[in-house]
Amino acid sequence: MLDAGLICHLGVVADGTPRVLPTGYGRLGDVLYLHGSSANATFMAGAGQQVCVTVTHLDGLVCARSVFNHSMNYRSAMVFGVARLVTEPAEKTVALRTITEHLAPGQWSYARQPSKKELAATSVLAVPLAEASVKIRAGGPSDEPVDHAAAVWAGVIPVMTSFGEPEPDAALRPGIAAPPHIRRRRDG
Amino acid sequence: MLDAGLICHLGVVADGTPRVLPTGYGRLGDVLYLHGSSANATFMAGAGQQVCVTVTHLDGLVCARSVFNHSMNYRSAMVFGVARLVTEPAEKTVALRTITEHLAPGQWSYARQPSKKELAATSVLAVPLAEASVKIRAGGPSDEPVDHAAAVWAGVIPVMTSFGEPEPDAALRPGIAAPPHIRRRRDG
Repeated sequence: MLDAGLICHLGVVADGTPRVLPTGYGRLGDVLYLHGSSANATFMAGAGQQVCVTVTHLDGLVCARSVFNHSMNYRSAMVFGVARLVTEPAEKTVALRTITEHLAPGQWSYARQPSKKELAATSVLAVPLAEASVKIRAGGPSDEPVDHAAAVWAGVIPVMTSFGEPEPDAALRPGIAAPPHIRRRRDG
Repeated sequence: MLDAGLICHLGVVADGTPRVLPTGYGRLGDVLYLHGSSANATFMAGAGQQVCVTVTHLDGLVCARSVFNHSMNYRSAMVFGVARLVTEPAEKTVALRTITEHLAPGQWSYARQPSKKELAATSVLAVPLAEASVKIRAGGPSDEPVDHAAAVWAGVIPVMTSFGEPEPDAALRPGIAAPPHIRRRRDG
């Protein structure tokens, strides 16, 4: 589930109040790496603190015969743990490769590698996958038996996430086609 | 932006630690209504407390010529405020109508209205829209000038959310077609 998501929501406590920040991530073994900027106070507030990282896939809108039984089909994972700020350059490089390859597989070896300065300007949090809660809701509506007699349509409107045709940068040099791993992202 | 989303992530502090819960919502004027179950401890922990509600639309994967400049195009709104548990039946009914119509416009008057018992089993939090932070990232990659000479493709892979063909409930009585407002959800 974590591997199929594109974005996660990082929950931290800052000044005693909750903050929820959308951010990129990647999984390596039993560690979740989260990508942020050193300038983002909410992201940095997670360092050394208990955080909650939630990844949600919305799969469908469940339309029932009664308003009460309307629902959503979804899969979500909530990961709880103390986030560790990754500072060691070798681990940071591995973490960034994991995050980049999660977003766009094949890009790490295709694009230019980060310089020391770029590495320093990036912040990464590592969250252990030791404690997690997974919730899934699938299938049709759960209507009351008495409602089945009603002449009301019931079912699921599927919700899909898909990739479009890659849009080249306006400044792209002529003659550079999207490589197979980028086109695969679109087709897959 | 809030009106275009389908799901939000509610951040609360429970036992001193952050929790991030995906949930349905709807907006009425300058109030955000969130839908939950009275049995959900995380949801109920938000009642009377400072919460953060984040709605995120992922629009694209930004592939740059350098790993460092990879990014995501997205729109997100973070709403901060003290959540109020809605208990008054008239407001609760209006809130549920708002949430139902947000998810599936037209369903409130089409499906069976909630009974008193059903109304009691549903919990609604109201969050004022007084304090919010909106972030948008759009457009192509922001590459370093020196990287433009590289023979590396750069651009954006669009990410789209769409609705599929409505899937009738297996127990649907024969002859009941999906009504226009359900089919419109698919076409729109």
